[in-house]
Amino acid sequence: MESSLQELIPHNNCFGCGPQNKSGLQLKSYWSGVGPSQAIFLPKPWHCAGPKHFVNGGIISTIIDCHCICTATAAAYFNENRKIGSSPLLCFVTGKLSVHYRRPISINTRLKMEALVKSATKERLVITCDLTTNDRLFVQGEVEAVKVPLSWMGI
Amino acid sequence: MESSLQELIPHNNCFGCGPQNKSGLQLKSYWSGVGPSQAIFLPKPWHCAGPKHFVNGGIISTIIDCHCICTATAAAYFNENRKIGSSPLLCFVTGKLSVHYRRPISINTRLKMEALVKSATKERLVITCDLTTNDRLFVQGEVEAVKVPLSWMGI
Repeated sequence: MESSLQELIPHNNCFGCGPQNKSGLQLKSYWSGVGPSQAIFLPKPWHCAGPKHFVNGGIISTIIDCHCICTATAAAYFNENRKIGSSPLLCFVTGKLSVHYRRPISINTRLKMEALVKSATKERLVITCDLTTNDRLFVQGEVEAVKVPLSWMGI
Repeated sequence: MESSLQELIPHNNCFGCGPQNKSGLQLKSYWSGVGPSQAIFLPKPWHCAGPKHFVNGGIISTIIDCHCICTATAAAYFNENRKIGSSPLLCFVTGKLSVHYRRPISINTRLKMEALVKSATKERLVITCDLTTNDRLFVQGEVEAVKVPLSWMGI
């Protein structure tokens, strides 16, 4: 089975998508190189909004952020014709995040995210992300990913 | 002791700030009526970014969203010269969220948020939020809060 970006990119303890963060959301993103990168997320009952029957906006912004940053990182390796996670490591963080919540999402729903590279330099990528359920658009996000020195990773 | 907005506004199960959500962040916001509304948040170790020593951007966006929506709700009652949480209930949700991460925040840090009403009609408020630690600005957020029918709350 194909490895997720989070399995390929090392040293990731992120609350949203770190494979080792047992108290986190453990989002998994998949990169194809052609077409959008994809991720599926199944909210837990406690990932609710004020009303228990809708998904929390903060959880949505978290998974959009993670999916976009991992997509930006994958794209940066791809643009250098390198294997994802190969040395020297590339590290990107979120500079800006914007989220447009078009309609509420039922909590018992399979959330699908598709992210595309809107623009890219070596230092900065802008990633857009559509969040759909059953092919209907619910949320749109955009993330500006900024390259930072490896020293940020503390390794 | 003064009650938090989350204690005054009923039916809130939110992951970010619902008092009853035992698996949530349980943010508490305080409204003065004059000056910004305030909230303090102490991240847990698992609220980290990719590097364990920085706070996760998704957690930051979540607490900014919650603090701004509760501020918008309080402001809406205030603008109607009504007690916060009084009947008929007012319900606001996030239409748009934007977050500008200016610099990384150490995980062992007391995060302070101050939110102000930038514009307000009966149906829509725009709230800005500065997140500081030790009086230094780290993150800026803006939330467009949209009034929705009480039927959204499922009560």
